[in-house]
Amino acid sequence: MRPAKLKRMTQPMDATQLTVDEAIMGRRSIRRFRSEPIPEGVIDRLIDLARHAPSSMDGQPCCFVVIRDRDVVAALVKIKNAHLPPDKQAYPADFITGAAAVVAVCVDSGRAYKRGRESGILAAAYLLLAAHAHGLGGCYLTAYNAEEGSLAAEISELLNLPEEIVPVALVPLGIPAEAAAPKQMRTLSGLVHHDRYDQTIPVGD
Amino acid sequence: MRPAKLKRMTQPMDATQLTVDEAIMGRRSIRRFRSEPIPEGVIDRLIDLARHAPSSMDGQPCCFVVIRDRDVVAALVKIKNAHLPPDKQAYPADFITGAAAVVAVCVDSGRAYKRGRESGILAAAYLLLAAHAHGLGGCYLTAYNAEEGSLAAEISELLNLPEEIVPVALVPLGIPAEAAAPKQMRTLSGLVHHDRYDQTIPVGD
Repeated sequence: MRPAKLKRMTQPMDATQLTVDEAIMGRRSIRRFRSEPIPEGVIDRLIDLARHAPSSMDGQPCCFVVIRDRDVVAALVKIKNAHLPPDKQAYPADFITGAAAVVAVCVDSGRAYKRGRESGILAAAYLLLAAHAHGLGGCYLTAYNAEEGSLAAEISELLNLPEEIVPVALVPLGIPAEAAAPKQMRTLSGLVHHDRYDQTIPVGD
Repeated sequence: MRPAKLKRMTQPMDATQLTVDEAIMGRRSIRRFRSEPIPEGVIDRLIDLARHAPSSMDGQPCCFVVIRDRDVVAALVKIKNAHLPPDKQAYPADFITGAAAVVAVCVDSGRAYKRGRESGILAAAYLLLAAHAHGLGGCYLTAYNAEEGSLAAEISELLNLPEEIVPVALVPLGIPAEAAAPKQMRTLSGLVHHDRYDQTIPVGD
């Protein structure tokens, strides 16, 4: 028996029965995928949703490169792994080769009002949530390093991005092959302050 | 007759009937608010949802300052307006005084794995979408300028943020007093590329 979420993939355009609360609470970062392809039309729908994220001055600066070519994905892995920070060595990017597609969320800096990264990240947030609502899994990988430009530059070169188009995030997508484990959340009361930050509130682990 | 969305606010914890697609497609940036307060418990629920956004290494670095104090909101307006870029002079922040609350999305840089801004922006994206699903309106305002630190520093000082807590976004929230006008979207086909960016695809306005 396939779980209901996967079953709904046979009708991708009707697969949006998850409410916002259900989707946000149920979404997890997924790094293991089944080998089946993503049904026709689903990624276009997800991109259509993602581009509805807010953007500075409604500039709608986002564009999307949907990468299915195995050579391009392999080159992306190589670039990402070469830029893996010391504290993230346990999380190499190899797993994205198992994704049916990797969506590179990019922004046109000419339409971004100097808020391209924010607009791209907001779009990636909606893309990830919509993917979950449509029965797919994925996770967020950054496509730039704020401290130095070579990660973004290498991705730009690989994807033939014109000068004004900059990569912001990489979102591997596929049908999940792992269940979302319950997530241990920090204590909510330690994260909420009123009017000003209150250092007397105990902060949870 | 109040529209259905507002009517549902009398049962905020059941007000999550919007699907992800409906919420993303129906959400707009709202800058005019009714004077009624936000029903008890709704903002806590929205924050609970927002903190479920993905974060680097699951560090869950976000915390939230819920600002209702009129003096603090007035001081925020002053700070934001003093930092208004030349091309955004038509959009001063005065409207946030009409919001029932302004949520400052902040991150603990000690838990952020150098990805604090991304984590904060992802949380703000979910906060905005959840707000819409719960009958509220809001919009995204930045709390930092990547090119110079004084905007974030002034907000940090106003909100008594400790050194390691940095502000990322400001989200005014309230019951909408304006309808979401249909949004003119760019041509989708001009925003989607396959495997590599294709400069021959006509880009819509």
